Amino acid sequence: MSEHAAASRLRLSGLCFLLQILLILLFAVFARYSPEGSPGPCPPQLNCSRRSPDSAFQQPRIQDVRVQVLLSFGLLVAFLSRYGPGSAAISILITAFSIQWAVLIQGMLYFFLNGKIYVGAQSMVSADLCTAAVLISTGAVLGRVNPVQMLLLALLEVTLCTLNEYILLTLMGVSDSGGSLTIHTFGAYFGLMVSRVLYQPHKDKRKREEQQDKGHQMDVLAVVGTIYLWIFWPSFTSTTTVHHNAENWAVLNTYFSLVASTMSTFILSPVLYEEGTPRMVQIQDATLAGLAVMGMAGEMLLTPFGALIAGLLVGLISPLGFRFFTPVLHSRLKIQDTCGVHNTHGLPGVLGALLGTLLTLLATADTFGYRLELVFPLVAQGSRTVTDQAFIQLSALPLTLLLATLGGCFTGAVLKIKVLRCCPAAQCKENPGLREVAEEGSDPSASDKELGISTLV
Amino acid sequence: MSEHAAASRLRLSGLCFLLQILLILLFAVFARYSPEGSPGPCPPQLNCSRRSPDSAFQQPRIQDVRVQVLLSFGLLVAFLSRYGPGSAAISILITAFSIQWAVLIQGMLYFFLNGKIYVGAQSMVSADLCTAAVLISTGAVLGRVNPVQMLLLALLEVTLCTLNEYILLTLMGVSDSGGSLTIHTFGAYFGLMVSRVLYQPHKDKRKREEQQDKGHQMDVLAVVGTIYLWIFWPSFTSTTTVHHNAENWAVLNTYFSLVASTMSTFILSPVLYEEGTPRMVQIQDATLAGLAVMGMAGEMLLTPFGALIAGLLVGLISPLGFRFFTPVLHSRLKIQDTCGVHNTHGLPGVLGALLGTLLTLLATADTFGYRLELVFPLVAQGSRTVTDQAFIQLSALPLTLLLATLGGCFTGAVLKIKVLRCCPAAQCKENPGLREVAEEGSDPSASDKELGISTLV
Amino acid sequence: MSEHAAASRLRLSGLCFLLQILLILLFAVFARYSPEGSPGPCPPQLNCSRRSPDSAFQQPRIQDVRVQVLLSFGLLVAFLSRYGPGSAAISILITAFSIQWAVLIQGMLYFFLNGKIYVGAQSMVSADLCTAAVLISTGAVLGRVNPVQMLLLALLEVTLCTLNEYILLTLMGVSDSGGSLTIHTFGAYFGLMVSRVLYQPHKDKRKREEQQDKGHQMDVLAVVGTIYLWIFWPSFTSTTTVHHNAENWAVLNTYFSLVASTMSTFILSPVLYEEGTPRMVQIQDATLAGLAVMGMAGEMLLTPFGALIAGLLVGLISPLGFRFFTPVLHSRLKIQDTCGVHNTHGLPGVLGALLGTLLTLLATADTFGYRLELVFPLVAQGSRTVTDQAFIQLSALPLTLLLATLGGCFTGAVLKIKVLRCCPAAQCKENPGLREVAEEGSDPSASDKELGISTLV
Repeated sequence: MSEHAAASRLRLSGLCFLLQILLILLFAVFARYSPEGSPGPCPPQLNCSRRSPDSAFQQPRIQDVRVQVLLSFGLLVAFLSRYGPGSAAISILITAFSIQWAVLIQGMLYFFLNGKIYVGAQSMVSADLCTAAVLISTGAVLGRVNPVQMLLLALLEVTLCTLNEYILLTLMGVSDSGGSLTIHTFGAYFGLMVSRVLYQPHKDKRKREEQQDKGHQMDVLAVVGTIYLWIFWPSFTSTTTVHHNAENWAVLNTYFSLVASTMSTFILSPVLYEEGTPRMVQIQDATLAGLAVMGMAGEMLLTPFGALIAGLLVGLISPLGFRFFTPVLHSRLKIQDTCGVHNTHGLPGVLGALLGTLLTLLATADTFGYRLELVFPLVAQGSRTVTDQAFIQLSALPLTLLLATLGGCFTGAVLKIKVLRCCPAAQCKENPGLREVAEEGSDPSASDKELGISTLV
Repeated sequence: MSEHAAASRLRLSGLCFLLQILLILLFAVFARYSPEGSPGPCPPQLNCSRRSPDSAFQQPRIQDVRVQVLLSFGLLVAFLSRYGPGSAAISILITAFSIQWAVLIQGMLYFFLNGKIYVGAQSMVSADLCTAAVLISTGAVLGRVNPVQMLLLALLEVTLCTLNEYILLTLMGVSDSGGSLTIHTFGAYFGLMVSRVLYQPHKDKRKREEQQDKGHQMDVLAVVGTIYLWIFWPSFTSTTTVHHNAENWAVLNTYFSLVASTMSTFILSPVLYEEGTPRMVQIQDATLAGLAVMGMAGEMLLTPFGALIAGLLVGLISPLGFRFFTPVLHSRLKIQDTCGVHNTHGLPGVLGALLGTLLTLLATADTFGYRLELVFPLVAQGSRTVTDQAFIQLSALPLTLLLATLGGCFTGAVLKIKVLRCCPAAQCKENPGLREVAEEGSDPSASDKELGISTLV
Repeated sequence: MSEHAAASRLRLSGLCFLLQILLILLFAVFARYSPEGSPGPCPPQLNCSRRSPDSAFQQPRIQDVRVQVLLSFGLLVAFLSRYGPGSAAISILITAFSIQWAVLIQGMLYFFLNGKIYVGAQSMVSADLCTAAVLISTGAVLGRVNPVQMLLLALLEVTLCTLNEYILLTLMGVSDSGGSLTIHTFGAYFGLMVSRVLYQPHKDKRKREEQQDKGHQMDVLAVVGTIYLWIFWPSFTSTTTVHHNAENWAVLNTYFSLVASTMSTFILSPVLYEEGTPRMVQIQDATLAGLAVMGMAGEMLLTPFGALIAGLLVGLISPLGFRFFTPVLHSRLKIQDTCGVHNTHGLPGVLGALLGTLLTLLATADTFGYRLELVFPLVAQGSRTVTDQAFIQLSALPLTLLLATLGGCFTGAVLKIKVLRCCPAAQCKENPGLREVAEEGSDPSASDKELGISTLV
């Protein structure tokens, strides 16, 4: 086989090796297990809680580490299965790397004491959420970047995503337990900006006919992926609410939003497309949109009615985005969006943030009762008015968009460095051994023979 | 494309829209979140518990909302995956609608106070069980009714199923935590009666050859579906037992019944069919039968031995039913049973109810000990003798059969209204865009090209 | 169809029937539900705990039966999905039988009181672990033994595996909560010895071309299987640690080992094979290896760093074993290893045991603190020195290897008895009805048309 191909393969291998050794060294120097499992409570010096700035509620719920890990893995693999067998391997690589890196970076900010990072179940959940943001971003560029570029994207995005989360949750005191802003909005716009910077024309010629071939195979995976999302997500979003009592409503609201957005797909799909029933992939997208919109508002909504309305609307907006907005995005703004993350994560995330702001504005001690302390501790303590809190929730949106956009531009510029890109096209075509690299590669004229898979799923 | 096809598609879209708006309005007027999550106990006025008529045990277990939602979704999607990718979309539509409708209808009966329905985790579990009954019924008519008819079927069945459940559990005080009667028997016979009313000859000519094509694809889904059932069902059935201590045995009994009925498949399959090992679909059916028979008896059986015997017997009866009874059902009684729900849910449910009656008759304070109060509170309190309870358990069976049969007849008659049926056959054939509608459609001469899928899985 | 084929099919059917009746009789005579669910604590006479020899910690955690069953089924089906749809049916048969048999055999040793076996959630978890060992062994011989032989293998292996576990955990006081020795090492070497005894040349000619055909189908199942392992295993291993506080670290260590071994696959795969990214099956193997190595060391490692190192190394060794050791095993030692269990379970299990010994040697009251009592109760009580404990941990390795090897030889010899083997080759070839029996059959010249499936997955 050609030297170029071998070099390309070995570059990935070498980078993985280098990064893993680096991670191990950092873990050796910094990471220790947190005393979470000890009989006594969490030591007061250590900020065990990730989001609440007040200390009364900071004892992590020790008892359900197993369930937490179960749920958080469930979440990740629900994402993994979204990208089909063709790109599942790369997604798993990104996941395995991002989790470790996120544990370190987040540990530096949240669980740092006396020069050591204290790792516990809570670190895992945080790291998983950050990894979810990275997986959303990769959805935007799938099929146009090679694994080496993917790894670097993960390296940079985990850092920036954690920074954004730290500013929002800890410094500004924003309530965003399900990550409408910190995960969905950040992940989507970061990915879209990377896609914009890496833009290359002439990339989606042969997609159409491939879609037909892989249809049935893909539907099985879409069924499995939707199933995972339905099972694991509503329960998972609640693992990040520190206060046990607040979680019930977050779970139920997410559940209602989910079913309403699914109904929307059946309302809109026959109107937009010439098919009687929507395809499984469309249902999966609607499910994701319904989940993303409940990220911030989930613990604030006081009646199932609100969750149903939000789910219905976002379920209508997301397919409209696919039909009318994605082509405009591509032709005018030159942003390619392989898996349509703008419609399934970006827009619903923004809408979720706006809804959250509105609900904050309406929050009174009267309507919230004892829950006010759980959802808005600073308001309940009297150190902030409801209007202040609403303004802060709202201002978190442009801040997240700014950080995601700038971060995406920077990351895209880094990924454009020539040494990271795939070998020239001529060799790719002649060499079947290179197929898999080329397929994920950034080369404009490479054979995108199986691009259809990633596009579809 | 033809006007008829467009009209047919838009009818589904319009009905979904109408129903969802109606649901949202009803939720807006009636539904509130229950104070379940509040620090204090459930208010005494509100009947938080769904089945126990005595108040000492009525506080729902607040702590595991997440696990409950996880398990109940798991159950539903185990059902979803049963119907294959071809009909998965329709099943999800039915699920999304039925859950919302069931929360409302059941709330009216169980969680109603001062003109409001109080929604909590318990509502979700109840709604999921009711949705399971609807999914069982659709299994009987799959491939012969269109989505619009399916939605109406769900609308009517949820109402009737809830009514039946209310009569049995609350008015009569029947013990049926796993739903042998309320879910399996009701769902199966309701679906069979609808199938009888909608009977059309000449519908299963080309099935055989289709089966071969889709075999491998289907087996993957059958593996996944069986897996879901094994993982989620034994734990799920216990979520409905109000009393924490009673649940252990229900879980373990279900588990033993499951493995015994699986063994039965391997005993009988080589005798009935000319194959060395049973197909995955047969194993999935045996699994379902083994679960259905433990619905009522699960919390009553005092030794694993009983569960093994019950599982073995039902695992033998179910394949015999497929081989000898389903053809008779079709040719003599003109009842088509697409997925064989009579053998996997109907018969095992009836047998489970009979077994439950027998066990009730044998229940004494001696053998049950402290568990008597948990399983039969009325008997333990002395307001009923064991014989009375057994008689009531037994009389619940014909009542359920009667309600299911009458309800099925009525629903079938409604679904026969002409405006609900698909466009004429000629157009279906000429228009490939209509394929998916026709495939699920009620038209006798429509191309049932992919009917094999639904039949098989 | 031919008489031989019918006889072969009926032999399986009859054996299943016989075994199930036998199991039911044994359950009827011996098994009772344990009073685990009773309000009071576990009666002191009954050794409720499975591994800890001291009584202070023996009360099982009653509250999470549902989660335990959920997790343990999850584990089993993760294994099931490994063997693909072709052999999934047989794997389910083995599982259904082994669980029942293991509950009885283990009950005799652990939960026996006054002539009765007390069955509870703990029995289920133990039985599942034992079944996992059997499934590992079948992985070595898959495609070369028929279902009847498989059942006998399960019968013998469950007995020997339980014996080995009893000697190690109860008599010797070895700490091996995740089963590096008792499950992975025992299962792998047992299976390999059976494979050696049943060795027949000329069995893997046409494998290569079959692999290409089934590739896509298999990848879907490998994705699902990997997903199950990621979700369920890290949480599951902790269900066996009796002490609630010790489980946190076991879960987290397993998690870290898992991601590191996954990274290793990406490091090594491009070097060993001419492909840019590893296949899903390779990732699944690395996942299993990463889990196996943490079995013993999981609760002993004090920092995430150690778990990462162990995972990285085992993730490197396992693919090297596939590339260089498996061919040697086959050509020199005449051991065929269909699914490569030596690399995914055998070697990592042995390495896990060595790592555990090393960590035991380093354990001091200083570094372990309160955890010493949880992980090494005998050391904490002063009845053993750390060096003694380390020596016992180490000596458990050769003992397990010896028992597995002898047991495998004996079982292989039993399976060679002529009456158990398949019909002659000539008939297999001419009779398509026999395909499935032949495919799993032991006949050397049988058409191994679909052997590729089992080999690949």
